[in-house]
Amino acid sequence: MTRVAVQQLAPVLGDVDANAELSLAALREAAGAGADVVVLPELVTSGYRFADAEECAAAAIPADGEVLRAWSQAAAASGMVVVGGFCEAGPDGNTYNSAAVVDETGALRAVYRKLHLWDGEKRLFTPGAEAPPVVDTRVGKVAVIICYDLEFPELTRCVALAGAQLLAVPTNWPLTPRPDGERPPETVVAMGTARVNRMAIACADRLGTERGLEWTGGSSIVGADGWVAAETRAVGMAVADIDLDLALDKQLTELAHAFGDRRPEMYD
Amino acid sequence: MTRVAVQQLAPVLGDVDANAELSLAALREAAGAGADVVVLPELVTSGYRFADAEECAAAAIPADGEVLRAWSQAAAASGMVVVGGFCEAGPDGNTYNSAAVVDETGALRAVYRKLHLWDGEKRLFTPGAEAPPVVDTRVGKVAVIICYDLEFPELTRCVALAGAQLLAVPTNWPLTPRPDGERPPETVVAMGTARVNRMAIACADRLGTERGLEWTGGSSIVGADGWVAAETRAVGMAVADIDLDLALDKQLTELAHAFGDRRPEMYD
Repeated sequence: MTRVAVQQLAPVLGDVDANAELSLAALREAAGAGADVVVLPELVTSGYRFADAEECAAAAIPADGEVLRAWSQAAAASGMVVVGGFCEAGPDGNTYNSAAVVDETGALRAVYRKLHLWDGEKRLFTPGAEAPPVVDTRVGKVAVIICYDLEFPELTRCVALAGAQLLAVPTNWPLTPRPDGERPPETVVAMGTARVNRMAIACADRLGTERGLEWTGGSSIVGADGWVAAETRAVGMAVADIDLDLALDKQLTELAHAFGDRRPEMYD
Repeated sequence: MTRVAVQQLAPVLGDVDANAELSLAALREAAGAGADVVVLPELVTSGYRFADAEECAAAAIPADGEVLRAWSQAAAASGMVVVGGFCEAGPDGNTYNSAAVVDETGALRAVYRKLHLWDGEKRLFTPGAEAPPVVDTRVGKVAVIICYDLEFPELTRCVALAGAQLLAVPTNWPLTPRPDGERPPETVVAMGTARVNRMAIACADRLGTERGLEWTGGSSIVGADGWVAAETRAVGMAVADIDLDLALDKQLTELAHAFGDRRPEMYD
């Protein structure tokens, strides 16, 4: 079993130093809980609700800067895989809504740039131009997408077909109304996506209110069987022990196979 | 608003006459409830749990035979759109797991043959070779897929992109264990699929036990917002009034569009 942690945090808009501390405390807490993998929210280094591109760019950090180096040190010290969202100052001068994948040795294995920018993000960020990475780690193959990307089933299918056993999803889900007793709608999407792809999904959401926008606080860990193994509505950590081997086996019954039964020629 | 009904029935294995009566009674009940659209289960004319291809073929009926003519008469008499599963004796001599779409005039507008055959169905049926139909009716565009097809997000996305406002899903869901308090997993998949595609989904499941196989009884009607509007675990009908116009509008916010934000070049 693999111990997966998601950290539901409330970063401070634009305060990179405070958010770096917040993220490092969250990594220490996860390590203390024996996590093998920990996921931090989208844009945890910067907050989300920027007024304009200039304010956003001012809170951006390079992928090879000190915050991600500190994440790498935390990963190496504990042997954890760390996935977290950050506001990236690209070497090309563009600002990206990105996520880092740091493996258990502390190596920065991938920087993913969000492909599907949500609403006003289009005014702040340059969209990514590369498919989500699927990274071989000591716990298995870990992929990453960010928030709204999860609403594109073509993308999550591609990630699963590429062999991902655990899909890490740093998110910032704006709170939307939902019927009494229902989970956040994005969690329902994660459950369905996990089930049809036989792939575990760990969503690290955020909490708090920024400039009038309230966040959902819907962090959840979903097994490759599609069921929620852990979730939280509070600030802090949710942890679950997940069987990532299940994601290697797409055989559903003697004659049914989740991937082998696809009819790609019919999907036009 | 469009009144959508799903009929959760328990057909008798191999008894075509009894099942025809059962389906016609279900159509009368739906008409009496003022339904604009009614969905019947997969293979409602035949039952499901055949021992072999010969037994299955013996229960197959032609698309232009008397059972579907009776469905057409019921549709025309009430002005309802009727979607139902049947065991089809193809003119080519093959047996198909099919579904008919009859519009409000009584015209048989489409016969869909299941593309993704589940497990032992592969020993009984020839798989379909054509994409799911999207049929213009008086309530809007109605599409149909069958049961396991729903587990292929590439297919449901195609149907949504083709303009479907309501996806009718005749199903036979074998009962599987689920955590206390959870909906059937297939309903969760339907909810996620409805939400990301902004398309209503009506699943007509079955009940009963056939040759040791127990059915889920998970019929549900999900709005284009992804929330369950009606569901039942008993034999009989569930009804909900659904706004199918919502499915015409994929604009999520000022700058977010469920379809316009796709990045097809990244889905390889």
